[in-house]
Amino acid sequence: MPAAEFQAIVRVAQELADISGPVILKHFRKPMPVENKAVGGAFDPVTKADRGAEKAIVQALAARFPDHGVVGEEFGTKPGTSRYKWVIDPIDGTRSFIIGSPLWGTLIGVLEDEKPVFGLVDQPFTGERFWSGDKAAYQSVRGSRPGRIKTRECSRIEDAVLTSTHPDLFETAEQSAALTTLKSRARLTRYGGDCYGYCLLASGFVDIIIEAGLKSYDIVALIPIIERAGGVVTTWSGGDASNGGDIIATGNPRLHEDVLAQINRL
Amino acid sequence: MPAAEFQAIVRVAQELADISGPVILKHFRKPMPVENKAVGGAFDPVTKADRGAEKAIVQALAARFPDHGVVGEEFGTKPGTSRYKWVIDPIDGTRSFIIGSPLWGTLIGVLEDEKPVFGLVDQPFTGERFWSGDKAAYQSVRGSRPGRIKTRECSRIEDAVLTSTHPDLFETAEQSAALTTLKSRARLTRYGGDCYGYCLLASGFVDIIIEAGLKSYDIVALIPIIERAGGVVTTWSGGDASNGGDIIATGNPRLHEDVLAQINRL
Repeated sequence: MPAAEFQAIVRVAQELADISGPVILKHFRKPMPVENKAVGGAFDPVTKADRGAEKAIVQALAARFPDHGVVGEEFGTKPGTSRYKWVIDPIDGTRSFIIGSPLWGTLIGVLEDEKPVFGLVDQPFTGERFWSGDKAAYQSVRGSRPGRIKTRECSRIEDAVLTSTHPDLFETAEQSAALTTLKSRARLTRYGGDCYGYCLLASGFVDIIIEAGLKSYDIVALIPIIERAGGVVTTWSGGDASNGGDIIATGNPRLHEDVLAQINRL
Repeated sequence: MPAAEFQAIVRVAQELADISGPVILKHFRKPMPVENKAVGGAFDPVTKADRGAEKAIVQALAARFPDHGVVGEEFGTKPGTSRYKWVIDPIDGTRSFIIGSPLWGTLIGVLEDEKPVFGLVDQPFTGERFWSGDKAAYQSVRGSRPGRIKTRECSRIEDAVLTSTHPDLFETAEQSAALTTLKSRARLTRYGGDCYGYCLLASGFVDIIIEAGLKSYDIVALIPIIERAGGVVTTWSGGDASNGGDIIATGNPRLHEDVLAQINRL
């Protein structure tokens, strides 16, 4: 992609996050009716925030890049005529959002001919933003000057900090065994996190993330951030992560090989 | 306690949090050496932050209330000559701190004749602060005007959001069974949180917290916040929570009875 085109994508993604943040925050930590048992039901604050933000993003994007395609978590796919397709998940980590925790984020990713080339994670409550450049990954906090982020040089599972969103997502016996084995070898395991965990991996504080059953829109925006920060993200069998599924992300290529070997030995 | 004395305690606690926040933030998200396997070892950033903040708090407190006692997590007990004893945990949630997550906080509690009468939780990275007044509980975000917080009217386990810091803290078969049973009945369970989870309970987004093996300094500051917000916090057998141990907090007295009954039926 020409550099000017890439810079325009980075700039527009920042604008989209500036637009979606306030739309989502209007609904964050607002009373959540207890009788509404359908998490993700049509009238709860998280659904309102999710739909409102996606609508605002899609509208803003259509005005800026009318020929680009869009894949949204809420409203589905709008085909484009260019090589670029934006992949949007307004609230990744809806369960964190529901309980008032800040460990959720807005994911804005760009595919070029189906390959992830740019990603941005926005957390409007804490004011954090993580994104990929052409060669490096960056972070800003409440409008601070962008700082470069890098993964940590941790090459042994025994030294690693492992995170995963929730153990119950590992539904099959094989999935569950993979988590248990890694957990027994890792130095420290924490649950919870969704996209926020990947940002902490890209920033050098988490070394391994293991997840099961992700959707494409859960991971596309994160791939360029992790890779530009020095990390590796694949499926459990070492394949392309951009379609989702069972995902391993690590901060270090040697660690990644060991983790895949460990999982696939089971 | 006379109202003026209580107001002085609230004011000083806010000053202490203003002092400890910057001391801790100097060490938050700073490179964490991977070879340092001793979590809590003497030279890692979290220990530096913990000790530095406690020292700053204890010094400031001695200048303001020389006759009050102090119980710190790091430096132990300094006896006082008054009825008041401050209980300080500079970083509750050290594992969250280590992985760069904002789900930790500084706990500042006050005991009057061994009874918790005031509590404050400060989260200097997100800029959130939660504390108890004489009749209500309050929150501010990055210096905003204090807003009142209240627990949610959720009286059935089936409607409840349940959180717990980590399933591995439930070491005995009985402890593990209590978690498993509650989890199977609750609407939604999330792990991770430490003191932050109790603040979300006091704010009406979490309904039940179950924890095993807490220390006194993990819970003293949280009790007045939860109670003034409308919640209940006891040991699993319904006793005084202020010495720590296995703890249940709920947002609603009826829910609390049901949870205790469920656990003690096992």
